[in-house]
Amino acid sequence: MFLSNMDKATVLTQALPYIQKYTGKTVVVKYGGNAMINEGLKEAVISDLVLLTLVGINVVLVHGGGPEISDMLKRVGKESKFINGLRYTDDETIEIVQMVLAGKTNKDLVNKIERIGGKAVGLCGIDGGMIKAHKLEGDADYGNVGEIYEVDTSIIKDNIDKGYIPVVSTVALGDDDSPVYNINADTAACKIAIALGASNLLLLTDTRGLMRDVKDEDTLIPEVRLDEVQTLIDEGVISGGMIPKVQCCVDAVKGGIAHTVILDGRIAHSILIEMLSDEGIGTLFKN
Amino acid sequence: MFLSNMDKATVLTQALPYIQKYTGKTVVVKYGGNAMINEGLKEAVISDLVLLTLVGINVVLVHGGGPEISDMLKRVGKESKFINGLRYTDDETIEIVQMVLAGKTNKDLVNKIERIGGKAVGLCGIDGGMIKAHKLEGDADYGNVGEIYEVDTSIIKDNIDKGYIPVVSTVALGDDDSPVYNINADTAACKIAIALGASNLLLLTDTRGLMRDVKDEDTLIPEVRLDEVQTLIDEGVISGGMIPKVQCCVDAVKGGIAHTVILDGRIAHSILIEMLSDEGIGTLFKN
Amino acid sequence: MFLSNMDKATVLTQALPYIQKYTGKTVVVKYGGNAMINEGLKEAVISDLVLLTLVGINVVLVHGGGPEISDMLKRVGKESKFINGLRYTDDETIEIVQMVLAGKTNKDLVNKIERIGGKAVGLCGIDGGMIKAHKLEGDADYGNVGEIYEVDTSIIKDNIDKGYIPVVSTVALGDDDSPVYNINADTAACKIAIALGASNLLLLTDTRGLMRDVKDEDTLIPEVRLDEVQTLIDEGVISGGMIPKVQCCVDAVKGGIAHTVILDGRIAHSILIEMLSDEGIGTLFKN
Amino acid sequence: MFLSNMDKATVLTQALPYIQKYTGKTVVVKYGGNAMINEGLKEAVISDLVLLTLVGINVVLVHGGGPEISDMLKRVGKESKFINGLRYTDDETIEIVQMVLAGKTNKDLVNKIERIGGKAVGLCGIDGGMIKAHKLEGDADYGNVGEIYEVDTSIIKDNIDKGYIPVVSTVALGDDDSPVYNINADTAACKIAIALGASNLLLLTDTRGLMRDVKDEDTLIPEVRLDEVQTLIDEGVISGGMIPKVQCCVDAVKGGIAHTVILDGRIAHSILIEMLSDEGIGTLFKN
Amino acid sequence: MFLSNMDKATVLTQALPYIQKYTGKTVVVKYGGNAMINEGLKEAVISDLVLLTLVGINVVLVHGGGPEISDMLKRVGKESKFINGLRYTDDETIEIVQMVLAGKTNKDLVNKIERIGGKAVGLCGIDGGMIKAHKLEGDADYGNVGEIYEVDTSIIKDNIDKGYIPVVSTVALGDDDSPVYNINADTAACKIAIALGASNLLLLTDTRGLMRDVKDEDTLIPEVRLDEVQTLIDEGVISGGMIPKVQCCVDAVKGGIAHTVILDGRIAHSILIEMLSDEGIGTLFKN
Amino acid sequence: MFLSNMDKATVLTQALPYIQKYTGKTVVVKYGGNAMINEGLKEAVISDLVLLTLVGINVVLVHGGGPEISDMLKRVGKESKFINGLRYTDDETIEIVQMVLAGKTNKDLVNKIERIGGKAVGLCGIDGGMIKAHKLEGDADYGNVGEIYEVDTSIIKDNIDKGYIPVVSTVALGDDDSPVYNINADTAACKIAIALGASNLLLLTDTRGLMRDVKDEDTLIPEVRLDEVQTLIDEGVISGGMIPKVQCCVDAVKGGIAHTVILDGRIAHSILIEMLSDEGIGTLFKN
Repeated sequence: MFLSNMDKATVLTQALPYIQKYTGKTVVVKYGGNAMINEGLKEAVISDLVLLTLVGINVVLVHGGGPEISDMLKRVGKESKFINGLRYTDDETIEIVQMVLAGKTNKDLVNKIERIGGKAVGLCGIDGGMIKAHKLEGDADYGNVGEIYEVDTSIIKDNIDKGYIPVVSTVALGDDDSPVYNINADTAACKIAIALGASNLLLLTDTRGLMRDVKDEDTLIPEVRLDEVQTLIDEGVISGGMIPKVQCCVDAVKGGIAHTVILDGRIAHSILIEMLSDEGIGTLFKN
Repeated sequence: MFLSNMDKATVLTQALPYIQKYTGKTVVVKYGGNAMINEGLKEAVISDLVLLTLVGINVVLVHGGGPEISDMLKRVGKESKFINGLRYTDDETIEIVQMVLAGKTNKDLVNKIERIGGKAVGLCGIDGGMIKAHKLEGDADYGNVGEIYEVDTSIIKDNIDKGYIPVVSTVALGDDDSPVYNINADTAACKIAIALGASNLLLLTDTRGLMRDVKDEDTLIPEVRLDEVQTLIDEGVISGGMIPKVQCCVDAVKGGIAHTVILDGRIAHSILIEMLSDEGIGTLFKN
Repeated sequence: MFLSNMDKATVLTQALPYIQKYTGKTVVVKYGGNAMINEGLKEAVISDLVLLTLVGINVVLVHGGGPEISDMLKRVGKESKFINGLRYTDDETIEIVQMVLAGKTNKDLVNKIERIGGKAVGLCGIDGGMIKAHKLEGDADYGNVGEIYEVDTSIIKDNIDKGYIPVVSTVALGDDDSPVYNINADTAACKIAIALGASNLLLLTDTRGLMRDVKDEDTLIPEVRLDEVQTLIDEGVISGGMIPKVQCCVDAVKGGIAHTVILDGRIAHSILIEMLSDEGIGTLFKN
Repeated sequence: MFLSNMDKATVLTQALPYIQKYTGKTVVVKYGGNAMINEGLKEAVISDLVLLTLVGINVVLVHGGGPEISDMLKRVGKESKFINGLRYTDDETIEIVQMVLAGKTNKDLVNKIERIGGKAVGLCGIDGGMIKAHKLEGDADYGNVGEIYEVDTSIIKDNIDKGYIPVVSTVALGDDDSPVYNINADTAACKIAIALGASNLLLLTDTRGLMRDVKDEDTLIPEVRLDEVQTLIDEGVISGGMIPKVQCCVDAVKGGIAHTVILDGRIAHSILIEMLSDEGIGTLFKN
Repeated sequence: MFLSNMDKATVLTQALPYIQKYTGKTVVVKYGGNAMINEGLKEAVISDLVLLTLVGINVVLVHGGGPEISDMLKRVGKESKFINGLRYTDDETIEIVQMVLAGKTNKDLVNKIERIGGKAVGLCGIDGGMIKAHKLEGDADYGNVGEIYEVDTSIIKDNIDKGYIPVVSTVALGDDDSPVYNINADTAACKIAIALGASNLLLLTDTRGLMRDVKDEDTLIPEVRLDEVQTLIDEGVISGGMIPKVQCCVDAVKGGIAHTVILDGRIAHSILIEMLSDEGIGTLFKN
Repeated sequence: MFLSNMDKATVLTQALPYIQKYTGKTVVVKYGGNAMINEGLKEAVISDLVLLTLVGINVVLVHGGGPEISDMLKRVGKESKFINGLRYTDDETIEIVQMVLAGKTNKDLVNKIERIGGKAVGLCGIDGGMIKAHKLEGDADYGNVGEIYEVDTSIIKDNIDKGYIPVVSTVALGDDDSPVYNINADTAACKIAIALGASNLLLLTDTRGLMRDVKDEDTLIPEVRLDEVQTLIDEGVISGGMIPKVQCCVDAVKGGIAHTVILDGRIAHSILIEMLSDEGIGTLFKN
């Protein structure tokens, strides 16, 4: 595609009303999966985020890191073990989880943001006592998997005030049972977004969004009202790993976040397209 | 031209390094001539300015208004009279000049900015004692044409602080001889830019820039060093009305403004193209 | 009158309790008519306003400009036309109205304030989107006469914060029907005063105030309670052009302005006398 | 004298240029002698000071209290004793000096200011470590009479910032020899004024100023240049208690205070007359 | 006692949780009686207060001064006279009360704080109109004894903001009957503490606290609930001068002060022990 | 050791002058070696740091983590390799170094600070572009070992402003050759301290300080002047790993840090003893 600079300027000015709509607002992006592995997509995500900050939007990046954790566990000779879809997290595992998320994935993202001229700070749920959790009680013993009981976004807001993009690893400050807990990143992103009074929660995934037929992208459901969710579950449209993700979206909408979207992280610049154009991509949840 | 939203997002992210370069800086745009008469071009200029403010650039718009003044003089049955290229400004004329510039041209520009969601304030050299002048002495009597002896940009900075785009008409607070003076808009823009420590001074004109052969746009001189100016005058490349305009550019460069450019206001979005791309259009003056 | 400096100092200290009463408060002065035409009276009004700001009172000056508009219309060969006391404002007229009010009357007042050492900024309803209006619907078609539907005093407060006296012309930012509307200055002053939470609204007129017998100044009514207004209208004491003016006062009192006064602009320093002495002059409206 | 309110308003506006000249500046008034004993004059001084604060001038009041100290010493059966014009201050005396100045004279002045609606705080040289002194060494032993070696006006500035008129008693924080020292009020006022970068130092006394013939008020010398001082001492025009007072004035002028004046405290409102009129009363010292 | 520096460091770190509990909070200390006469105890109190400010606690010191007042009255040949436990305060007495409290006791405390490197300001109820009173009406005529009707802690907060320890003498700004009133220091301390939203009110006395048997310190009652007070009065445990003191405590608890304690001022560092250890000493009042 | 609370209070007040000396200043603590492995010592260090912040001292903790890195390398089956005392850092090693330092050691320290009520933020040289390095050139190829060329402490200051203790891992933002570099922690601590204008740089080590005879603690040299350093090296007193550490101290003193000390991290509360007592422990470097 060849574009003259005048064409490009036209594109920029077309973004004007969208920028005006979101300037001064806060966007929480949950980032994980393939978009985080593919280097080209990672660059696209990072430059989208930096651009958003330059047009006056506050950006918080919450990331997962499952594949990197599994990889490191394998390197130390430990097998990943999952119960009901949750990683069984014994003491050795939580040490690796914290180390990989907060020390590798997180700081690598900060590194990339700094490298293209953005300003970022790498935080985890321990910093400033941001996320507090106790042991997740359930049908099974998941080890050091935690359930959030308190979110204090002061350290996020303090760093936004000073002009940084907070990049957040989702391990939590623990209690007497365990000093640290492994927590679900979607849930953490949702709770952080609500606590911040964010205008947008964007969950980047490896799928086009919610689809009637998971194998046919043309069946993407662009918008879901909260009162339709149960029916969609009953019909099996929402199933498996999508159920907890949709639950986060439902909580977010109930928590006052006007734009909660499951977005395809495999599409370059899906964040910008969602935020700064009239093209809703992915699935929007609403009241 | 059809562009997918992904193409558009790519365009936006390509502007990133340019935005980062100018964010927090101040740009003074001198606006006049055809770009101000053609409604489509006016819209393009206005949206460019609003976009620049949204990416964190401080914008000051200094405007002229010769044609509108001449038109109003004609309506009150008075002929425009020029001496050495300067409008002879008797008492009736200065009243019309102030009224048209500060009351019509200025507030119409503010109106357009507000209408697309920007925030603007219409000022003239009288407000806050911004521009002080006394009678221009010279070979002839030009009436109430003034020569600037003091520029106080406090009111401009105060309004930038509060988030407004100052739109400035170039009439000056006078002295005992005359309460108001008509002053040259290019000169005023240059002095304001220097006083503000602006990074860019963009003079929008009805020409591609400085051309070796004024009839052949392909002879555009993209860059002029200050030490080449005299030669270009001697060669007749710089002549007529271009001489005082180039003198403003020379003063601006000497006054510390890194990017002083004569720009073609007839090209839509020439401001954005100049600021947010690698395409220098027009003629850049430099040390 | 000869006064020793000790006498003068005594006068100054007598003003002390009145200054203490109003310091930090906001006063909106509506200025029009003869007080604006007579140069001596104009000087007196301007020096009163500057003095008030020096003793810590925030001053906003809202002005009309009927005679100057009529004069300019005549100069361009257009007759002023009034329907039900309102100026019929066709497209050519609104252009002249805006130009005269915002470009001439307004900036001339700013000029005078600056000249005696005050700091002023000349604004109109368009600046910062201060006054928004749509077409006034009524028994007749008044052309581009507007009815205010929104007042945003941010730009006034921003400039007061920075130490300026806002001088306000009452043309309004329009809508799709018309970019600008001509609006009633008394109404605008009243709405601005209410929006600012002003303590005083002073309407300078060409009369002593409200009089039982309009030809006999000794019949001045010093105070009117809101519940007396209807009776006074029924009795014909309030009639003609005084009816809408009184209506503004009623709205102001209802809007929480403790001191709403119709004041005689033909008395030099009537503003200071009203504010800084025990002599209520003019007619005070109260609950 | 009967004055109409319009006359009074005229007087107020005549003060305008003087107010503009001093607004934002700091004035230190040294207050003592008869002006402090006569209740009517005291009221006049207090209202002058409050008025000055209302027109934006920062006021600091430094006071003496010799007669009240002598009176209290007498009440406790102790005779006042002077050596070379300085009060011999034994341990019992310094206790009384501190108590009377900081507890009685000072708080009575604060009381009067508060009572007419001003805001004041009563401080002494001990508060915030404002004035530090050690024992005055000289030809004789003066007991606990101190010589200032450090002035820290932070506590004065902090209270001005918060809107109070600091009223200052001149006892100083001492050293190992004595916890408190009695210090000369004129000297303290001068040093405080210099440290504050005051624009005016007004020394209220019981005389018209410096007079050629001390018995003939018509011989008042309105202005003295520093280079004339020695001649005037040699001629005996400056003599006795006037010598140290003049020395303070000389130091103040050298310390950068543009308006240093010995003023007659027996003239009601002499402060306002000096500050807010063209009548220089008393004797002005200048370079 | 010999302590190694490591032992000392251990002591410091043991205070950590107590410091964290009170940092940013405000403590009002009422100071009187023997703790104020014994020089060693005075030093301990002063250093306690300065230490509290250094760990981020806002300290306000309210003091009495009965013995010093009686002493000075005796020196001027006047006998102290008490009615119902209150000092009969004629005009001569109120003059002495103000002078001794605000000029001697107060500034001596400020002097001591400054001398060990703290920052203090000596205020009384007159400064900034802090405490306003009218004549106490009761069974007898107490002269210029006042009853507080308004407490404005602005001047206290302003000085805390600037880093000073306010030291407060309890004389009040009066009314037309009397310019100054003598007021009860416990009551004043209580009302100031409530107005400040203090976390602690510590009343330093010459007793261990409230004791079942006033002669047996082992009968100290460590905690009293408000609903037990009446019974304790009925039983005679609370009696005489303790009744008004306890009433202050009751008012303070009702006014929202969580830690209201009658403390033994004869124990060195009782303030630090109460605040920064787990040892509650004295009697705590609670809901 | 049994101490009454009064004894403890005495200890607290003895720290008063030391606290006053350092309040508002900044202390950089370099932390490594045994003090970081022994849990009891770690608790002592952490509580010392939190206490310092509570008395108004700004604390920055810079940490190493050699043993934990070696341990993790072993777990992934990789041997630690040292050249000239520097860890040879190939691509796999730098990944582990970053992960262990920034993800494990760092966040564990933050965890401990938060757990006792402090506020901390875990940063590394990548965050906010704090430390920038390029490849260390030398006699050998050390892989991804970096040499610092720029330190920007903005992110440290921003977080101190907001009340956090910055805990800093010393990996640096890299360049085109390598995105991350492993850097020497002593050097980083020194450069950060200088850039912050710190008053103290405390290097916690596994030794009493600099000793004449490394086996005899009684030969500790309490103070070393910069001009003695070369002699001590020549004499072999400073040798081996102590040479670069001493070089850091020399640079720090030259860089304006008044108190640069090599401290024994094996002594509990050595930080508090050094800062808040008269006992200089360890070796102080000075001009």
